[in-house]
Amino acid sequence: MNVRLVTKIVGIILLSEPALMAAPAVVGLIYRETDSVTAFLITMAVTFAVGLVMFLPNRSYGRVFQREGFVIVTLGWLLISVFGCLPFVISGSIPNVVDAFFETISGFTTTGASILEDVEALSKSMLFWRSFTHWVGGMGVLAFVMILTPLLGSRNNYLLQAETPGPESDKLVPKARSTVKILYGIYFGMTLVLVLLLMAGGMSVFDSLIHSFGTAGTGGFSNYSDSVGHFGSAYIEIVIGVFMLLFGVNFKIHYFLLLKRKLSILKNEELLTYVGIVFFATVTITASIMKSFPSAWDALRASFFQVSSILTSTGYSTANFDIWPQYPRTLLLVLMLIGACAGSTGGGFKVARLVLISKAAKRGVNRLVHPRAIKAIKMDGKTVDERILVNAGVYLILYIFIMVISVIVLSLDNITFEENISSVVSCFNNIGPAYGTMGPVGNYGGLSILSKLVLSFDMLAGRLEIMPLMILLLPGDRHLRRSFVQQKTVVP
Amino acid sequence: MNVRLVTKIVGIILLSEPALMAAPAVVGLIYRETDSVTAFLITMAVTFAVGLVMFLPNRSYGRVFQREGFVIVTLGWLLISVFGCLPFVISGSIPNVVDAFFETISGFTTTGASILEDVEALSKSMLFWRSFTHWVGGMGVLAFVMILTPLLGSRNNYLLQAETPGPESDKLVPKARSTVKILYGIYFGMTLVLVLLLMAGGMSVFDSLIHSFGTAGTGGFSNYSDSVGHFGSAYIEIVIGVFMLLFGVNFKIHYFLLLKRKLSILKNEELLTYVGIVFFATVTITASIMKSFPSAWDALRASFFQVSSILTSTGYSTANFDIWPQYPRTLLLVLMLIGACAGSTGGGFKVARLVLISKAAKRGVNRLVHPRAIKAIKMDGKTVDERILVNAGVYLILYIFIMVISVIVLSLDNITFEENISSVVSCFNNIGPAYGTMGPVGNYGGLSILSKLVLSFDMLAGRLEIMPLMILLLPGDRHLRRSFVQQKTVVP
Repeated sequence: MNVRLVTKIVGIILLSEPALMAAPAVVGLIYRETDSVTAFLITMAVTFAVGLVMFLPNRSYGRVFQREGFVIVTLGWLLISVFGCLPFVISGSIPNVVDAFFETISGFTTTGASILEDVEALSKSMLFWRSFTHWVGGMGVLAFVMILTPLLGSRNNYLLQAETPGPESDKLVPKARSTVKILYGIYFGMTLVLVLLLMAGGMSVFDSLIHSFGTAGTGGFSNYSDSVGHFGSAYIEIVIGVFMLLFGVNFKIHYFLLLKRKLSILKNEELLTYVGIVFFATVTITASIMKSFPSAWDALRASFFQVSSILTSTGYSTANFDIWPQYPRTLLLVLMLIGACAGSTGGGFKVARLVLISKAAKRGVNRLVHPRAIKAIKMDGKTVDERILVNAGVYLILYIFIMVISVIVLSLDNITFEENISSVVSCFNNIGPAYGTMGPVGNYGGLSILSKLVLSFDMLAGRLEIMPLMILLLPGDRHLRRSFVQQKTVVP
Repeated sequence: MNVRLVTKIVGIILLSEPALMAAPAVVGLIYRETDSVTAFLITMAVTFAVGLVMFLPNRSYGRVFQREGFVIVTLGWLLISVFGCLPFVISGSIPNVVDAFFETISGFTTTGASILEDVEALSKSMLFWRSFTHWVGGMGVLAFVMILTPLLGSRNNYLLQAETPGPESDKLVPKARSTVKILYGIYFGMTLVLVLLLMAGGMSVFDSLIHSFGTAGTGGFSNYSDSVGHFGSAYIEIVIGVFMLLFGVNFKIHYFLLLKRKLSILKNEELLTYVGIVFFATVTITASIMKSFPSAWDALRASFFQVSSILTSTGYSTANFDIWPQYPRTLLLVLMLIGACAGSTGGGFKVARLVLISKAAKRGVNRLVHPRAIKAIKMDGKTVDERILVNAGVYLILYIFIMVISVIVLSLDNITFEENISSVVSCFNNIGPAYGTMGPVGNYGGLSILSKLVLSFDMLAGRLEIMPLMILLLPGDRHLRRSFVQQKTVVP
């Protein structure tokens, strides 16, 4: 492992964090929140200093290989959360460090799981920072850094790949940085439209920013303890419901549809499956909850909002779905596992992988009858590389292993089986709310430190799609390490 | 599909069922249970008649291909359960047909899930039949038929393969029928030793037969509602605990160890993993439940018995583990998923598959770092065919799909999430007891008809390892069907 290179790039990531924190600091100035502003300024200074110490002395550069890419991304996300939680601790908003870390990594990974009993007690700038992490994490921390600075240069294919969700990572245009700029452009544009639509619905500027960040990043933090239900507005419910779905779509689709005007992209198999799942779940859940709503229209709206919120891994709620009948509760848990589309800001196993493994399973059964038939699997008319199929299988195995081990560790805590499994599923797939104590009207504050750390790991593993964290567990390879040192060249 | 051939062979299976039922009928005569004996005789006559109608007119024969093999095995198991439940219905022991079918398929699939509120109300011959199905199902219905009659001849490789559990099916000796005879010899011998050991511990002949059938088949039906706990004997607890583990080992190991005296077979990776799991689970569960037992020795015994019972998919209990703390409850649920060794009478995903997919996952992660490395996966020193790995992956996918869909359907019933998921896991992996209403002191009687049918499907899918049932869902292949008809030859 090229440790100097890794240290240098992680330094760059930390140097960028103060730039992010400038935003909530300004909010603090506007609302005259002296304590919060001080906390942000101290953190900015500390983070900048640490970043500088990591960046400056390491003048030697090399190439970023897969392994370095994975380590940089994992460490980058971890450290940005460690330093990102300092304002909460310093200002006393969340005095417990583990809790503050949980809240921050929940923010960056766009999970939206909270340890806060009373979210409304937080200052405006803290609430802003908490939600802003969603927006940054949605598109990716590395992607954000790349927009901020050209320092990462052109050596960053492996970096972006490591934080882009989905079984396959396409570049829209040859250069990684240009792809990021296009994607961030779309992301920024869609967020802006959402902010304006929410303000048109009567939301304050602040509230609409908070909920736009949470929707765009498919995060789910709200500044109200009753989430989107707080507004009691069908208009806002529908706007956010639709936009969650839009941010859960592969951004490639938005690119081709908005910028290239290619309608054929709508025949995308993942997209059609995604829409199919939303339709099926919305209709059947509506039927199941109808009785407890004043009208079918109310039930339909509540059902659509919750399906959209859970499938896209956002986690907003307009109703306490924890008290719904078993069918919707169970189906929503399954939707948590499926998740949104690849290449979106959403979490979960991803619809693309679900389609892939379904096709692989179908072929597997067919092969038993026709053992000599060699049939490639096609998706969107194109043959899928067998290696991508194998990777999807490996991903499925690790996905299950991590959840099972997490559930076993959490069982040491005094929670019901339902609370346990729903918390793990919810955090690992970056949703947020679970059931019982951790339900939409509850929080994760009561868990043990061990459980909070396990769930934090799960959130990060889920957001970075497992592999980067697994690489860290692999034994080092001396031969490779040596070859890295030899390849070392001097770059600014 | 060669329908005549399938009909004929399924006819042979049905013709064998009266021979099986002769055993409980004799028990009924001994205990002078007129109603029960009548019920058995009527069923035997009906089953024989139906078997004859299926067997006689279909004189045309062909070869049994994979597809035919799967269809025959699925239909055979299904029909033997349908006819096998008639004595319960006719005698009025279980008047409801769906319940009687559930109980019978639970018996044959060696699940041991019961709908009976008061098992002790059943007549001796009914109790015998119920447990005897475990013993037959443990080794396999087709294997049993093959022992009874040479009618299936040498055309039966695909037949045996379809009901032998595990990722790979080895034959010990070239001829399928000879392999079956050796395996049944070991099975019979081990059962006999167990019967004698239990009688030495003070059990009546009847009780020791019942519990030997349940242990050998890793089924779990007892004739007492408090299961093995009824005897309150440490000796019986330990004997059954050890024998459950032995019947959960690949019979290949018993063959090489007992008949070939090859000690090296003990280095088998699956066996070592199996023992490792038992050790880890027993020790940690003992630590977790210690407080509520009079001594560490009592806790250790209870822990070992329950781990052995659950991992091997038997389902006997000496304590109500449903009221244990969350850690043992959760770990036991995970053990249900893992299951016993391939080629044993136990159910579950199988330890061999767990080892295989773990190795595949490790290789997958390694490949990210060394993309050009081509490394075969080895097990017990031998290279594993890639096709077996792919099949294990396909199996995992279907395994998850079936459980998820079952859980969604069961959620329509008015049961908790824990009851739902534990029932599906328990039935699909052929364990028996679940949690809550379906716990060790409860039963499945309260579920809806739909849920009972879904769980019956799960039990069969679990016992036959999914694939045979999936084949039935595939669209037919006309080209192949034609070639079968052409190959038709006339055999007695």
